[in-house]
Amino acid sequence: MNITRINHIAIVVNNLDEAIRTYQQQLGLTVSKRLHMPEQEVEIAFLPAGDSAIELISPTSETSGVAKYLAKRGEGLHHICLEVPDVQQSLEELAARDVQLINDKPIRAAEGLGFFVHPKAAHGVLIEFLQPYDET
Amino acid sequence: MNITRINHIAIVVNNLDEAIRTYQQQLGLTVSKRLHMPEQEVEIAFLPAGDSAIELISPTSETSGVAKYLAKRGEGLHHICLEVPDVQQSLEELAARDVQLINDKPIRAAEGLGFFVHPKAAHGVLIEFLQPYDET
Repeated sequence: MNITRINHIAIVVNNLDEAIRTYQQQLGLTVSKRLHMPEQEVEIAFLPAGDSAIELISPTSETSGVAKYLAKRGEGLHHICLEVPDVQQSLEELAARDVQLINDKPIRAAEGLGFFVHPKAAHGVLIEFLQPYDET
Repeated sequence: MNITRINHIAIVVNNLDEAIRTYQQQLGLTVSKRLHMPEQEVEIAFLPAGDSAIELISPTSETSGVAKYLAKRGEGLHHICLEVPDVQQSLEELAARDVQLINDKPIRAAEGLGFFVHPKAAHGVLIEFLQPYDET
């Protein structure tokens, strides 16, 4: 496995505008990008720090997975995303080691193709593996 | 505020040896350093990824803060650590903005001097600000 960096750390929040205000005006980070992801029924904002970023995620419906997570767990850390050069190869390597995966093939995320490892397979942490989209 | 990178993401685990085995042999990361921190009654291991790292933390007593956290919340993501060049200045800036802090002055952590922002002030996330020790 060739993990090149922590692409982002995701934080689930109730209200994206309020959270952006807190993280920018109180904590000193800066939003680089804001996106609406209709398929996942979420809005997200990226706040870079070094070669990684904090990703704030807020649901845009009450039925999305993120909305259900919020209702059950409240605001807070949600997952970490590890960047790899070849997501299909990483998925196959982990599957060959019998690591419990949430996705059996890569899915389209905001920043690339990714898949999730089940928290049961990572000591309670939801981990995404991501291959960024080719920007050329 | 001048946040230069995400120094690390901390994950609390029951057994450090088992967690290291999972993160190395299953998930593909590599331990760079392992430390015993008698003052905090914890053992920690760092697994670098890009210019950041995952920090696994395990209690060495049943009375430590980490042991109580584990008993209440179970294994999982614990805090994120943002690196700054001058921790005293960052603390004063946040205090001047009335951000709720856990420490009123920087404390000695494994890798530098740091302080914690209360999760109530960061949408449910425990955030550490850290100035690494001068390695010269």
